[in-house]
Amino acid sequence: MKIVITGGYGFLGQLLAKKLLEIGKLVDRNGDLKTIDDIILIDQIEPKNPIKDVRSIFGDISEPIFFNQAITDDVDGVFHLAAIVSSAAEADFDLGMKVNLDATRILLERCRKLPNKAKIVFSSSVAVFGNAPLIVEDDTPALPLSSYGMQKILGEYLISEYTRKNYIDGRCVRLPTIAIRPGKPNKAASSFVSSIIREPLSGENAICPVDRSQSLWIQSPSVIIENLIHAYNLNQQEWGTESRVVNLPGLTITVAEMIASLKTHGGNTSLIIDKPDETISRLVKSWPGAMNTKRARKMGFKNNDNFDSMIEEFIDQQIS
Amino acid sequence: MKIVITGGYGFLGQLLAKKLLEIGKLVDRNGDLKTIDDIILIDQIEPKNPIKDVRSIFGDISEPIFFNQAITDDVDGVFHLAAIVSSAAEADFDLGMKVNLDATRILLERCRKLPNKAKIVFSSSVAVFGNAPLIVEDDTPALPLSSYGMQKILGEYLISEYTRKNYIDGRCVRLPTIAIRPGKPNKAASSFVSSIIREPLSGENAICPVDRSQSLWIQSPSVIIENLIHAYNLNQQEWGTESRVVNLPGLTITVAEMIASLKTHGGNTSLIIDKPDETISRLVKSWPGAMNTKRARKMGFKNNDNFDSMIEEFIDQQIS
Repeated sequence: MKIVITGGYGFLGQLLAKKLLEIGKLVDRNGDLKTIDDIILIDQIEPKNPIKDVRSIFGDISEPIFFNQAITDDVDGVFHLAAIVSSAAEADFDLGMKVNLDATRILLERCRKLPNKAKIVFSSSVAVFGNAPLIVEDDTPALPLSSYGMQKILGEYLISEYTRKNYIDGRCVRLPTIAIRPGKPNKAASSFVSSIIREPLSGENAICPVDRSQSLWIQSPSVIIENLIHAYNLNQQEWGTESRVVNLPGLTITVAEMIASLKTHGGNTSLIIDKPDETISRLVKSWPGAMNTKRARKMGFKNNDNFDSMIEEFIDQQIS
Repeated sequence: MKIVITGGYGFLGQLLAKKLLEIGKLVDRNGDLKTIDDIILIDQIEPKNPIKDVRSIFGDISEPIFFNQAITDDVDGVFHLAAIVSSAAEADFDLGMKVNLDATRILLERCRKLPNKAKIVFSSSVAVFGNAPLIVEDDTPALPLSSYGMQKILGEYLISEYTRKNYIDGRCVRLPTIAIRPGKPNKAASSFVSSIIREPLSGENAICPVDRSQSLWIQSPSVIIENLIHAYNLNQQEWGTESRVVNLPGLTITVAEMIASLKTHGGNTSLIIDKPDETISRLVKSWPGAMNTKRARKMGFKNNDNFDSMIEEFIDQQIS
């Protein structure tokens, strides 16, 4: 079984690749658990530390020729994680359209021409909701208030339609904000959610650009990876025919609550500097802070128990 | 004031052009009623009977160069009606994507570069709803079950986002099925809705491809045109900031009820031949038969009173 991960050297891509290497098996198009023979990571720029035991292909995914070469006829499935993140897509509309929309279409067109129907897991986002109600339900309509959210919802509709036309077997998961990411801040509007925990734990300053009363819908990296794999492994009939999109479970937490939890874990909360940023506040406010994810739970998607365990997971992984 | 109509020689395009010539004025970007100096009809193929007092430009709207030349810097507004209709988009996926999605993007990109922000009225469709509930509400999420419906919902999201980014001033109206169209049947899955009235009235046979108990959501051509113009004339604040999309009012009627009304107007109903078509039945069944269009009525969009008056409108226009 041959699996492709786009955005393979992004944070989630690397975690997913390592997890796939560890478990070694996925459910194939016939519903059978099969050994993964080949994992191909696709990304723009070659990283300093390439992952062992996977193949890597580097290039511009918005160039049609790239996917035509990178996705060979024997590919069984794709985890499509590559994206221009929220603040970056808001700042550069054309770049967001090119990578978040055009490249997704090119990928779908390539997969449509595969001799065997490929499973495609698409990482969408709760950013498809803008000015969402207090609690988002499974059938709350998506009215994005960001270019990123708009590009993600277009990707979802395309994948649902390509699936209906029997060109692919698509699955879209709307990811909560991921906390706590290791590494450095990025251009996601949600980047601070990890920063305000991660930086103080290593004695560094962190900027909080939003009001501390801001609610967030979050999930830990390990649970996100588990859910991406679950989205792949579910059979066609478990996804149903009507919608190939699901809101993932998550935890509702305010910034203040995260900071309180950081304190109980020995973090120096005085290192967090409040510096309101209007653009980031507007984007983050437009995302849902709470969701009722009945469908996802019925389909067996997982959640974190509480934020304390998410901090502990982060601390453990940093030490190990 | 310079107005462009794409699909200008389609049925609605021609009606709209004639109506604009008749009323002579539209509300401009500043909210003032202004004289229309120039109407430009854009279409693929030159018709036998071009409309007097308008300019026409013919070509392929999916070629970027076409809109770049046809939409000059002094264009104030665009009615974007050009589309590959439902059954045709279902039969030829690539053609539907090219015209219904790519050409819309090219138009939006051209308008984004205009020196003054253009109003764009986009004709969407109730086909964005698939397996809709018994009554569609303003906030019922769109889950299209046709390529046409998917392409229309993507157009809506693009127009809402281009509006939010302040590139254009977009307005999307989801049109009911239009009855009764004059002329010949076309490739719209809804084409029979007009056929079963129009053809018997002129002594010809008509095919009914769906069950006579099928419910439809319909509006007359004259009311549709009135609503397209109303969509244009409304000020930005009347559209609001959250969604630039509205479900238009309509009448709920079954095929059997339409045929009963035809009979009372002297139509020979024995000319209607039931010949079930699975593809058409599936598409038509996936559209809503009834809608609760509170938002549209609050915004001042119009509706027909009853189906009898729609038949009478058709008979009057055929005679005059």
